[in-house]
Amino acid sequence: MITVVAKSILKEGKTDEFKNLTRELIDETRKEKGCIEYILYEDIENGGVFTFIEKWEDMDCLQDHFQSEHFKKIGAKVKELRKSRDINIYKEV
Amino acid sequence: MITVVAKSILKEGKTDEFKNLTRELIDETRKEKGCIEYILYEDIENGGVFTFIEKWEDMDCLQDHFQSEHFKKIGAKVKELRKSRDINIYKEV
Repeated sequence: MITVVAKSILKEGKTDEFKNLTRELIDETRKEKGCIEYILYEDIENGGVFTFIEKWEDMDCLQDHFQSEHFKKIGAKVKELRKSRDINIYKEV
Repeated sequence: MITVVAKSILKEGKTDEFKNLTRELIDETRKEKGCIEYILYEDIENGGVFTFIEKWEDMDCLQDHFQSEHFKKIGAKVKELRKSRDINIYKEV
């Protein structure tokens, strides 16, 4: 199993738009093969900071996710809302 | 419930020392009141990148953790091993 941590810092005033966009992404992604967990978190101290924590069966499933229609479509829109992004792929120690 | 994501980028060649130190930290922290999950992850693509994902009942439990003897003792040693740290406290969206 692999764990993805993907942090986004949004441009000012984009929180509602981001939440609306990612709702569909979450619904569609959770139906994907090999998706064990796909949860969006919001920073409780810093506005506009969000992180997805994702658990996937293996790297192939994650690559399929990156190639999915919903990820490409919504991902392109989300990209416009953020200032920066930090993504890492982990295994448990 | 709150979720903490704490990412460390280590100085060159400090991975083994970091893993040894954090083993005790993990064992002790998992016994703490309000600790639901406390897992260390290692980046599978980038050496020396580690992230704790932690689930706590509430902020009071997390503050008690920061004040615990094992956190203060091991935290001070870990600090010497890393180049940078990024910590966020989240709630589920």
